[in-house]
Amino acid sequence: MKAPPPPPAPLPEAVHTVETPVALVDMDRVRHNLGVTMQYARAHGLDWRPHVKTHKAPALARLQVEAGAAGLTVATPREAEVMAPVASDLLLAHPPVPPKAERLGALPPGVRVSVALDGPDLLPYLARVAREAGRPLRILVEVDVGMGRVGVVRPEAALSLVQRLVGDAGLARHLPWGGLLFYPGHVRLHQDRQEEALAQVAARLGAFLEVLEGAGLPPGVVSGGSTPTLFGSHRIPGLTEIRPGTAIFHDRDSVALGVASLQEVAYTVLATVVSTGVPGQAVVDAGSKALAREEFRAVAGEGGYGLLLDRPEVHVAAVSEEHGILDLSASTWSPRVGDRVRIVPNHVCVSVNLQDHLLAFGREVEGFGTIRLPGRGRGRVTAAPPE
Amino acid sequence: MKAPPPPPAPLPEAVHTVETPVALVDMDRVRHNLGVTMQYARAHGLDWRPHVKTHKAPALARLQVEAGAAGLTVATPREAEVMAPVASDLLLAHPPVPPKAERLGALPPGVRVSVALDGPDLLPYLARVAREAGRPLRILVEVDVGMGRVGVVRPEAALSLVQRLVGDAGLARHLPWGGLLFYPGHVRLHQDRQEEALAQVAARLGAFLEVLEGAGLPPGVVSGGSTPTLFGSHRIPGLTEIRPGTAIFHDRDSVALGVASLQEVAYTVLATVVSTGVPGQAVVDAGSKALAREEFRAVAGEGGYGLLLDRPEVHVAAVSEEHGILDLSASTWSPRVGDRVRIVPNHVCVSVNLQDHLLAFGREVEGFGTIRLPGRGRGRVTAAPPE
Repeated sequence: MKAPPPPPAPLPEAVHTVETPVALVDMDRVRHNLGVTMQYARAHGLDWRPHVKTHKAPALARLQVEAGAAGLTVATPREAEVMAPVASDLLLAHPPVPPKAERLGALPPGVRVSVALDGPDLLPYLARVAREAGRPLRILVEVDVGMGRVGVVRPEAALSLVQRLVGDAGLARHLPWGGLLFYPGHVRLHQDRQEEALAQVAARLGAFLEVLEGAGLPPGVVSGGSTPTLFGSHRIPGLTEIRPGTAIFHDRDSVALGVASLQEVAYTVLATVVSTGVPGQAVVDAGSKALAREEFRAVAGEGGYGLLLDRPEVHVAAVSEEHGILDLSASTWSPRVGDRVRIVPNHVCVSVNLQDHLLAFGREVEGFGTIRLPGRGRGRVTAAPPE
Repeated sequence: MKAPPPPPAPLPEAVHTVETPVALVDMDRVRHNLGVTMQYARAHGLDWRPHVKTHKAPALARLQVEAGAAGLTVATPREAEVMAPVASDLLLAHPPVPPKAERLGALPPGVRVSVALDGPDLLPYLARVAREAGRPLRILVEVDVGMGRVGVVRPEAALSLVQRLVGDAGLARHLPWGGLLFYPGHVRLHQDRQEEALAQVAARLGAFLEVLEGAGLPPGVVSGGSTPTLFGSHRIPGLTEIRPGTAIFHDRDSVALGVASLQEVAYTVLATVVSTGVPGQAVVDAGSKALAREEFRAVAGEGGYGLLLDRPEVHVAAVSEEHGILDLSASTWSPRVGDRVRIVPNHVCVSVNLQDHLLAFGREVEGFGTIRLPGRGRGRVTAAPPE
């Protein structure tokens, strides 16, 4: 049983005067969401390695570690660099083409580093980097369970890659094999309809496990999962670790997929009505440079780029770069220029990536606190460790 | 006659080693594109006020001013702040809801500031800010010519707003009326098919002009246009000023609309192939956090998120946050992990907004130069004026 969401935290007075668009984070809901995920993982004996691409904030990663995360997942060398001060175990879930692995090699020595890999092409490069850095880079072999993006497609090819890793003493020392990794990003079905899709994922994964086990090479770690499949993870036999990202905040997709309720959405973009000139709509100052122009994928036939937290019948029907158009056709609300709204974006990860910072509020926060996002961008972190 | 595009500039050697994804700018093509726009504007007696939301770079704005721009268009207070050192005439083409106008009031005294407005709601606020700042804020009344986003819809309502501005001595002193402004963002037709759409825009605009002229209030400035309509601007009677943004770089949309050739595209995202595991495709490290997930709107039925500059038959068929999937079905190319490609995004403005900086190259640049993007983000510019 999921814990009930916390009652809405009062918004600081500054919500009426702060310049918009700006992103707000309800810290009570963040803590609730972390607790729900950790409770699920514990109940099913799964390690929890949240993906920090969603928030890019060491301060939030620290909360995840404190809540029980076994490590963190990152998508870029910069995310690894800014998260190293708050976690001792990092997984780069992206093939590290040159010159990215050098940055992993230069991470603090106390951090265990793993990388995902789906072919032998990068092995010489990674082995050289690991040797020169004097640290192992643990390899998780990425397998394709149906998404068709990255990942070894045939179980025999995965076995061959694993055999190469463990069969060569030089490689094995610098690039120890840790297990398998997959991302079922193609499974975006409502919780009630996930059985069949998850059974297919389990079957695909099972074929890899069978071949590896048959060769006497059972994987130590089997890391998989996403936020849409989060609460179906226990239906995937062999899984040892989950990597949800979005679940810290949730978004319009999460709600439509039944993974969260609107009362669990912790992230919104505060925007101001700037025009009511065209009948039937209102225009706000949050567009594709604050919400992202990310189509709504959860429900076929439904469009738009977000909805209002407090008036979910109002959708963001269209966006330009700095304009969002609210469709008022299903609402009795008559907005005026200057009114403020809180928008739930379709996909929170890409909206966070557009913000300078996040404003945190909640019962344990005085006014608005500022959450820095040093994981944004790509450059090497040269300053003192952030946060 | 448009000048022919310059021959391709040689790429610096570092193109093979710089970390990807990163955006490259061909400065020879930038200069060509600015020249083409200025030449068109001069030939038709139009002022050119380029929109800097596309590049957010004072260094590029300076080139526009040097090439003959009469002023700059900005979308946010921050863009105004970072552009003030390089231009003496700025237009905020967005309704300045509180507390944004205060930042306009604080711009250097030598800068003339105009704002777009489509209703009377903000007049008391703007008048107070102008009075307290001791500077006028020139008002351009925004009218809707068919896009249905922002803008006064009825000519009589526009007249009423103008009459209020000019009829009240207090208002007229602080908020002098400068003319009309419109944005035909709904016109995205190939150049060959723009006649009818532009005729509709001209008719809509004409209705506003007729009512204002009939009341003895002809507008001094009529500012309009976009990059898709750029070279049709002379077909809109009464127009005095054009505001193209994208035209400095161009993008996949520009090319598909016939506004530019692929040889005039000055902006690409350099990416590296990270996986060839799934047959028929290659995966690169540029996804929605480098290209943006902006659908291709120029040609109905064609999708994807970009194409390769050097192999335009290869499209970016899908994007995740840090992955782009290249569809190889129309190509004989067999990419390998580590190969590098240059991607033309669908919509350049939102891709630039995702970069830390741009790397410039060309005949007058030694290696890669760095173009800073201080117009990104929203915070007040507190440091010394950026380049």
